[in-house]
Amino acid sequence: MTIPEITSLLAKRDRRAVARAITIVENQGPDSGPLLHTLAPKLGNAYRIGITGPPGAGKSTLTAELTKLLRSKGKTVGILAVDPTSPFTGGALLGDRIRMGEIAMDEGVYVRSMATRGSLGGLSAKAKDAADVLDAAGFDFVLFETVGVGQSELDIASAADTTIVVLVPESGDAVQAMKSGLMEIADFFVVNKSDREGADNAVRALKTILSFRVTHAAEEWIPPVIKTTASKNIGMEDVLREIESHRQHLESTGQILTRRKERERERVHELVEAMLRIDFWTPERAAKLESELEKITAHEKTSFDLANELIAEFGKKG
Amino acid sequence: MTIPEITSLLAKRDRRAVARAITIVENQGPDSGPLLHTLAPKLGNAYRIGITGPPGAGKSTLTAELTKLLRSKGKTVGILAVDPTSPFTGGALLGDRIRMGEIAMDEGVYVRSMATRGSLGGLSAKAKDAADVLDAAGFDFVLFETVGVGQSELDIASAADTTIVVLVPESGDAVQAMKSGLMEIADFFVVNKSDREGADNAVRALKTILSFRVTHAAEEWIPPVIKTTASKNIGMEDVLREIESHRQHLESTGQILTRRKERERERVHELVEAMLRIDFWTPERAAKLESELEKITAHEKTSFDLANELIAEFGKKG
Repeated sequence: MTIPEITSLLAKRDRRAVARAITIVENQGPDSGPLLHTLAPKLGNAYRIGITGPPGAGKSTLTAELTKLLRSKGKTVGILAVDPTSPFTGGALLGDRIRMGEIAMDEGVYVRSMATRGSLGGLSAKAKDAADVLDAAGFDFVLFETVGVGQSELDIASAADTTIVVLVPESGDAVQAMKSGLMEIADFFVVNKSDREGADNAVRALKTILSFRVTHAAEEWIPPVIKTTASKNIGMEDVLREIESHRQHLESTGQILTRRKERERERVHELVEAMLRIDFWTPERAAKLESELEKITAHEKTSFDLANELIAEFGKKG
Repeated sequence: MTIPEITSLLAKRDRRAVARAITIVENQGPDSGPLLHTLAPKLGNAYRIGITGPPGAGKSTLTAELTKLLRSKGKTVGILAVDPTSPFTGGALLGDRIRMGEIAMDEGVYVRSMATRGSLGGLSAKAKDAADVLDAAGFDFVLFETVGVGQSELDIASAADTTIVVLVPESGDAVQAMKSGLMEIADFFVVNKSDREGADNAVRALKTILSFRVTHAAEEWIPPVIKTTASKNIGMEDVLREIESHRQHLESTGQILTRRKERERERVHELVEAMLRIDFWTPERAAKLESELEKITAHEKTSFDLANELIAEFGKKG
């Protein structure tokens, strides 16, 4: 498929074109830039939701149930399951895809696992590009699901309009969320598996922690905390209501544009860094690094000295 | 304190000099490079151990108990508690420091929390620099402790000679470790809190998963799995024995030098990227980015187009 072919098929939400286009942006090859350029005028429809939280919180189940609910309201949904690929297991874990099985047969849903390790510009560049593909293909919602631990969680928040942090009732989860930086990225919290003991305590703990947050402005958003049992399809309407409520907040305050600008600013930074890296690490410079490493491990010079030398040469040469 | 003063006081393991030197490398100011340059000839004594794993696994307790054991054998220990600083909580969590209280009074121990968010060259550059300070100050061991979720865990592995992954007996932890990339970085596993139910199952599960790993060479290291209950000081001698065993393995196979080279290679890459970023983002270029963001959010151009324009200018100008 050529780029014009992909672009015209994408407009019809053709699954093969969507798949092909995501592969192109995922591989970050020479077609990636031109494709994204062609898609630019078609962007702006999809609302982007990040679903994150510690491992075992039930994010996949919640994503699947939320998708079913959105489908029942006639909305189309693209899901990007973002997985820090393990060279050990050889890719995304099968389980996540199996659980998605039911909805993956639905024409109005597109599910894609994305490998993220070792990508230029980090996970978020790829995930944002893939979300743009889904947006251009006319999906109403893009859900980013991260499979657990990692920088990926924070990256995904920057790619989303609304970020949901999913926790379980077990004590300590709230504190761990605070430690790991999840507090800052949450637009709202879901205490999932809330048929387990301690759910009300967990909600209270989260609300208490959130109440310490200094509110700077009257229109500031205070993240709500809601309970769900996604595996029994309990509380999903509440999740959707909070998403809509947050979306209205972003739109009425104009913050949606601020967020989107911030996202594009970050994306330019990521792309520039990836490009600079490619320009800088010529075979000659890489060879010099290798030959000088001996001196560094022998403590005859430091990595700082070598970095300075390499940079000085780059400045002269360019 | 001037750099020569710091350097000469460091040789006597003067605590104020250690603190000052770590602050310098943490701030990455103009003194940082020259200081590291001065310290280079004094490096190579400290053995570096990374202690990581999911939140709540008891890493702080294990770090404290391991430190006491090393002290009882006459070894000096520097501890770097690496914390993805939260702008919300305003810094490292106090709890981690309180638990360290007992050992922090010991002259042969130095404990330091490091904030990591927003640092140039990422967490690992700073952590490696701080470890170099402790190494130059003559500490026998440097322990990196990460406080939970995040890229920091993978970064720390690249800064350490031996990486310990701490898990709890609860089912699923092994699978989550596999998902989150902890499997690849572990030189050995500790199932902590093993007085809880399921410890033997957890050990078996880990060993099973590890047995799937393809062994490429006869001298390849197979990560052992041991049980501890750090809070009751059970199993700490086993931890130390595995550290020594892994250290001997690295030394006898020459892999210790390979690891150290890899570490310095990565550090040069990080430094180069940080320097390029500073060179690139002049006020003019940053202003151009801001003024063009409107066009991107209006879908008139893409972040890819803008990144390309900025890079083309940079090439010409340099």
